[in-house]
Amino acid sequence: MTSVTKLNNSPYRVGMVGAGFMAKLHSLSMRNIAGLMDDPTASFELVRIIDVHEPLAQREAERWGWQEYGNDWKTVTNDETIDIVDIATPNDSHYEICLEAFAKGKHVICEKPLSTNSAMAEIMARKAVASGKVHMVNFTYRAWPAIAQAKKIIESGAIGKIRHFEGHFLQDHNNDPTIPLQWRFIEAKAGAGALGDVGAHIIDLARFLVGEFDSVSATMQRFIDERPLVEDRSQKGAVEVDDFTSALVKFSSGATGTIKAGWALPGFKNDVFFNVIGDKGSLRFSWERSNELQYFDSSDPAVISGYRTILMGRAHPGAELFWFPDLGGESGVGVTAQGIGYGEAFALSFKHFVESLKSGQSTAPNFIDGLRCCEIIDAIKISAAEEAWQKVHLAEI
Amino acid sequence: MTSVTKLNNSPYRVGMVGAGFMAKLHSLSMRNIAGLMDDPTASFELVRIIDVHEPLAQREAERWGWQEYGNDWKTVTNDETIDIVDIATPNDSHYEICLEAFAKGKHVICEKPLSTNSAMAEIMARKAVASGKVHMVNFTYRAWPAIAQAKKIIESGAIGKIRHFEGHFLQDHNNDPTIPLQWRFIEAKAGAGALGDVGAHIIDLARFLVGEFDSVSATMQRFIDERPLVEDRSQKGAVEVDDFTSALVKFSSGATGTIKAGWALPGFKNDVFFNVIGDKGSLRFSWERSNELQYFDSSDPAVISGYRTILMGRAHPGAELFWFPDLGGESGVGVTAQGIGYGEAFALSFKHFVESLKSGQSTAPNFIDGLRCCEIIDAIKISAAEEAWQKVHLAEI
Amino acid sequence: MTSVTKLNNSPYRVGMVGAGFMAKLHSLSMRNIAGLMDDPTASFELVRIIDVHEPLAQREAERWGWQEYGNDWKTVTNDETIDIVDIATPNDSHYEICLEAFAKGKHVICEKPLSTNSAMAEIMARKAVASGKVHMVNFTYRAWPAIAQAKKIIESGAIGKIRHFEGHFLQDHNNDPTIPLQWRFIEAKAGAGALGDVGAHIIDLARFLVGEFDSVSATMQRFIDERPLVEDRSQKGAVEVDDFTSALVKFSSGATGTIKAGWALPGFKNDVFFNVIGDKGSLRFSWERSNELQYFDSSDPAVISGYRTILMGRAHPGAELFWFPDLGGESGVGVTAQGIGYGEAFALSFKHFVESLKSGQSTAPNFIDGLRCCEIIDAIKISAAEEAWQKVHLAEI
Amino acid sequence: MTSVTKLNNSPYRVGMVGAGFMAKLHSLSMRNIAGLMDDPTASFELVRIIDVHEPLAQREAERWGWQEYGNDWKTVTNDETIDIVDIATPNDSHYEICLEAFAKGKHVICEKPLSTNSAMAEIMARKAVASGKVHMVNFTYRAWPAIAQAKKIIESGAIGKIRHFEGHFLQDHNNDPTIPLQWRFIEAKAGAGALGDVGAHIIDLARFLVGEFDSVSATMQRFIDERPLVEDRSQKGAVEVDDFTSALVKFSSGATGTIKAGWALPGFKNDVFFNVIGDKGSLRFSWERSNELQYFDSSDPAVISGYRTILMGRAHPGAELFWFPDLGGESGVGVTAQGIGYGEAFALSFKHFVESLKSGQSTAPNFIDGLRCCEIIDAIKISAAEEAWQKVHLAEI
Repeated sequence: MTSVTKLNNSPYRVGMVGAGFMAKLHSLSMRNIAGLMDDPTASFELVRIIDVHEPLAQREAERWGWQEYGNDWKTVTNDETIDIVDIATPNDSHYEICLEAFAKGKHVICEKPLSTNSAMAEIMARKAVASGKVHMVNFTYRAWPAIAQAKKIIESGAIGKIRHFEGHFLQDHNNDPTIPLQWRFIEAKAGAGALGDVGAHIIDLARFLVGEFDSVSATMQRFIDERPLVEDRSQKGAVEVDDFTSALVKFSSGATGTIKAGWALPGFKNDVFFNVIGDKGSLRFSWERSNELQYFDSSDPAVISGYRTILMGRAHPGAELFWFPDLGGESGVGVTAQGIGYGEAFALSFKHFVESLKSGQSTAPNFIDGLRCCEIIDAIKISAAEEAWQKVHLAEI
Repeated sequence: MTSVTKLNNSPYRVGMVGAGFMAKLHSLSMRNIAGLMDDPTASFELVRIIDVHEPLAQREAERWGWQEYGNDWKTVTNDETIDIVDIATPNDSHYEICLEAFAKGKHVICEKPLSTNSAMAEIMARKAVASGKVHMVNFTYRAWPAIAQAKKIIESGAIGKIRHFEGHFLQDHNNDPTIPLQWRFIEAKAGAGALGDVGAHIIDLARFLVGEFDSVSATMQRFIDERPLVEDRSQKGAVEVDDFTSALVKFSSGATGTIKAGWALPGFKNDVFFNVIGDKGSLRFSWERSNELQYFDSSDPAVISGYRTILMGRAHPGAELFWFPDLGGESGVGVTAQGIGYGEAFALSFKHFVESLKSGQSTAPNFIDGLRCCEIIDAIKISAAEEAWQKVHLAEI
Repeated sequence: MTSVTKLNNSPYRVGMVGAGFMAKLHSLSMRNIAGLMDDPTASFELVRIIDVHEPLAQREAERWGWQEYGNDWKTVTNDETIDIVDIATPNDSHYEICLEAFAKGKHVICEKPLSTNSAMAEIMARKAVASGKVHMVNFTYRAWPAIAQAKKIIESGAIGKIRHFEGHFLQDHNNDPTIPLQWRFIEAKAGAGALGDVGAHIIDLARFLVGEFDSVSATMQRFIDERPLVEDRSQKGAVEVDDFTSALVKFSSGATGTIKAGWALPGFKNDVFFNVIGDKGSLRFSWERSNELQYFDSSDPAVISGYRTILMGRAHPGAELFWFPDLGGESGVGVTAQGIGYGEAFALSFKHFVESLKSGQSTAPNFIDGLRCCEIIDAIKISAAEEAWQKVHLAEI
Repeated sequence: MTSVTKLNNSPYRVGMVGAGFMAKLHSLSMRNIAGLMDDPTASFELVRIIDVHEPLAQREAERWGWQEYGNDWKTVTNDETIDIVDIATPNDSHYEICLEAFAKGKHVICEKPLSTNSAMAEIMARKAVASGKVHMVNFTYRAWPAIAQAKKIIESGAIGKIRHFEGHFLQDHNNDPTIPLQWRFIEAKAGAGALGDVGAHIIDLARFLVGEFDSVSATMQRFIDERPLVEDRSQKGAVEVDDFTSALVKFSSGATGTIKAGWALPGFKNDVFFNVIGDKGSLRFSWERSNELQYFDSSDPAVISGYRTILMGRAHPGAELFWFPDLGGESGVGVTAQGIGYGEAFALSFKHFVESLKSGQSTAPNFIDGLRCCEIIDAIKISAAEEAWQKVHLAEI
């Protein structure tokens, strides 16, 4: 791959496509990341933001300092002064925008899931790799300190060989039947429902922490079959996707697992959760207490054996960007546990993106990771439909 | 069925078969239950305890006041003065003892799982029903206050229609490879490993809280393939059963679920755990905090919406037997949360048994519940072996 | 002191005075302790139970197998066949019964607080020591596995020099104003309110874990000034004692602390709580999760630094009596975390009493500990009344 | 007071004095707040940042876009184009800078504690009020959603009359004796140690949630008496302040409380903690789980009575600025619990400051709140030194 060479520390020039919920988080991350990294070469220039609904683009432009806004994403891909395309549109549009962006020599950061199906995702991944440009899928949880620390503990061998992974991403907000029939409820636009929206994240974390999937056996449920139309709430239309999906998993390593994704399960507010259970220890995490990592070490003496509740501080990966001052002691630890939130997760994603831009290496999570996630989603859908175990097809890229 | 008529409040005369770990808990429960219930008609006379390893029987007899001990269980079934046979032997022996006990007109309380396979369990259930005697399988968690309260909340409709059940019973002690090859590791004696031992409980709770199983898809894992022989620890023999089993479940109601059972998963000490998720609320329980029930009510206003952590007290079913004094206030609530433990779970099982004896009604958990559990265990084993969904066969009794 | 020599392992013959709430817990403990300890020499014979309200005594006698009952406690102290007097009456009556019991050569176990004031407690402690008999005050939390383990960790030096102790025993039940004006609300009978009832326990734990008190500064509050009379609920009488007391503490070691005791604080069900903070680590406990001990070790590496949540099992002191089977592995740990409750706390108290009887050594918590607790209660009361620091007077015994 | 009238939505022009740890949080907040509030009139222009150590000022200027930097704070107060002075310097310098800023007609936001003693703070508060300008002390926790929600619940009467407040702010980082002798350890510069640094926050929260203090009784401890000099670590100098302070509190309302502040207590990472206990319910909060509020409502039926764990979302005050999308349902609740952190606390402080600037009303926490906090700190210091209850002097402003 080619690295990005910038003259005079000029900022990365970005065009963003999609001015919905993600625009705030991406924009803030790009505004602040150079300061947070204390690295002026990590700065972004917010050149143009696009949304088919132009007033949205205008609003976000005014809020976050985008220099221009518009409603035609090709003004971004065609702009020779733009280095990077940041894509946060409905899932079905990622394909065309990505392909055009690569064709025009842009680096691309794309929201998850990469596409609505693995066939398109495969093409996207091939194009990304072939482009020589930096490509990243915004699986934003990987860089989260507690999760990155979990990864480090696993890699150190401290919990031994992984036996089982229990993961879920569960929310309850869509249990409100008055929420209208947005694109996320339409299969052609979203690919899958809860499975594609929140499930993509927990699938990615399972791959990140355990490794590749071999096969899946799944159930899918829809709880609310009709919702008010966005345009006319007095009318209803059919929901086409899952509200909740559960899958048994066999990993290639021989480990097993369960993956659950839901957005209408009362009591679960925003629970990205995992237990990773090895033969020497285990790790637990829940986003509902996202500044904690639970770690059990089987080698502790029985009288003091128990999960440690580790609160995140500057000792943990990524956290040094934020509010954990070094007080000058020899340990270098300083104040711990002030707490970071969802916004910081995105800042850390963009830190990762900057590092990829600098090195020219599209380190994971890249478009191949995006593809793998789509392949797993497809396998889960087939398994549920056919009521049978389904091998996960891993396309060679 | 016939109820037990006792003259002069004479106690129930019991013979116990099996003097292993369960003997202590059963003996104490029977010694104390009349006092705890403050009901002299609930008293048991501990007549005779049997173990093939007679010194064990002697030891337990001396500890708990059994009048006699021996090594031949037929001295119990043949004893016309004995009303009740209490069976806590390895799983493969339940069949013969139960059948003989019913043949001799005894009431029977039997440890779980009822048998090593559903074919034998079916015969046992038929004989139990045909006997007209009281029969109970000691699924001891059903009567636990926090779980009985969960059941009451579900029955009240407060959490609505159940969408998903997530349950596990996970321990880690057998991750110690020096634990010898006891009967629980031999398929012919145990039927299944973790699935039969601890899995039986969580399967029973799933049926108790949600209803009948329709079908299962499962994985089974063995982590430690060989263990030292009990008789000669310098030699090793093959473990034949699962250390960990996971199953996807479809319930007859349309709900889905996952069930996991394991005894060698680091970090899990004794975790009987469930989430029951309905369309209006949800419930959570973990035995590791067994005096708590977590309850989420979707109808709470958003600003105060959250799981309630309910600490058990005399307001909760079964707890009135124990240490929760009524202080004479109009609410009648009194002191809460002194805490009860595993021993009290067995006392509550025997309270249930006494109530069945008095009414002559073998209310659940009876031998039909024991059979259902075996049918589910069998289906899970077949599913794992065939790597396919397996319908649960429900024999008509 | 003289040890108790029993011929032929004959049981300890006990007379109990007081058939209120404590009778159940004491009776069960004495019925079961020999079996739990698997030591036939630890058995008690329940000879006679007394209550001024004789029907209460009769009820408890019938429930637990006391051979006789009555309403005159002197029939116990005067009975030459009785070895032990177990006192669970209102606080103001302990003095006379104890003195008579020692005068008649009985061993004595007495409920806490030892007396309604330190002057009487001092006489009781002198008489106890002078008697050469075994004396114990039933500070039942000392022997609880999680707390006994905390003590062991402190003694090991693992948390270093203690800097601060934060302890409370808080309940909410008496926030119900319809609870009638029992003896606990009358100063002459109780000595203090919440401070004497639940505060005695947390004061004792502070002494157990940290050491002697030097001085206190306190506030006392009463929330409910009048309550219905027991005899005639249409009438009300004055509450004379505290509903809630808070004290700053200076320990003799230089450590500081806070002690709080309350029985009418909404949200606290039965919270015996402490943080013990040393210069190398700390310990946390709450009775509301009584099978857990939280342990923080400052020497852990920063990346895995955090409180360990230790679940109690047979590795922990006292727990070996209960439901934690040894499975024959070399570690000897076996199943952990089945859970024990308030009843087991009393069994462990009586185990301690048996050990004192056998050794003839009145190890703590004995009447001197009972005295120290009364001295602290008195100092707290004076401090609150005078709004000034008050030295704790430690009588020489 | 006079409100700030800006032409053409021109931004507030700010000069900041102090480029230490707080500079990052203040700078980011001012950069982002207009976007977060979606209000272009809320924007700040970062004109000049000053630090006596000019390279620090330069670094922060370059990171966050301050137009100029320097080492002389009078270039800020003397600059007629600057509207606002933001002060984040050592405590002893606040006085002179504030007085000059007010003299020059600036609005002032000042870090806590307002001053090193209440005598100076009183003058500062008088000058602030007399200036007619907006003044704020950055007690940043007041605006935190979980805490602001607690305040709303208290104001609603839902927990009734407050009986007791238990609060602490405890950290452990300064237990590292190699941390050098910075200004926070010198009484003349800091006023107090842990009490001034973290204690100021919990004192302010006690006032916010309960009301004014009447009197205090306190202990103060120093654990580490000497530390390496900043300039020459081979030399040591004397620590002059407290590492840990505990105080009993009587509030003017009749409620009682305890306040603790420490920065060297192993196990406590960053624990801003409170229990507010009323006669009808109670509230609990810990910064270590800062996106949660625990709420107990005594009016819940006994069978479901328990603390609710409320996870913050857009239903809670202040949270609407962040990552909690409204999904268009009628409830308007949307996704909850993505989590916010310490950075967002400062953004919410600046939101409050903006609102004060717009209204011209220096709503709490203003300089009078800053004064009250200093008065309480002084009373605690006197109480500890004199070992006696100390009335809190409330100067009339």
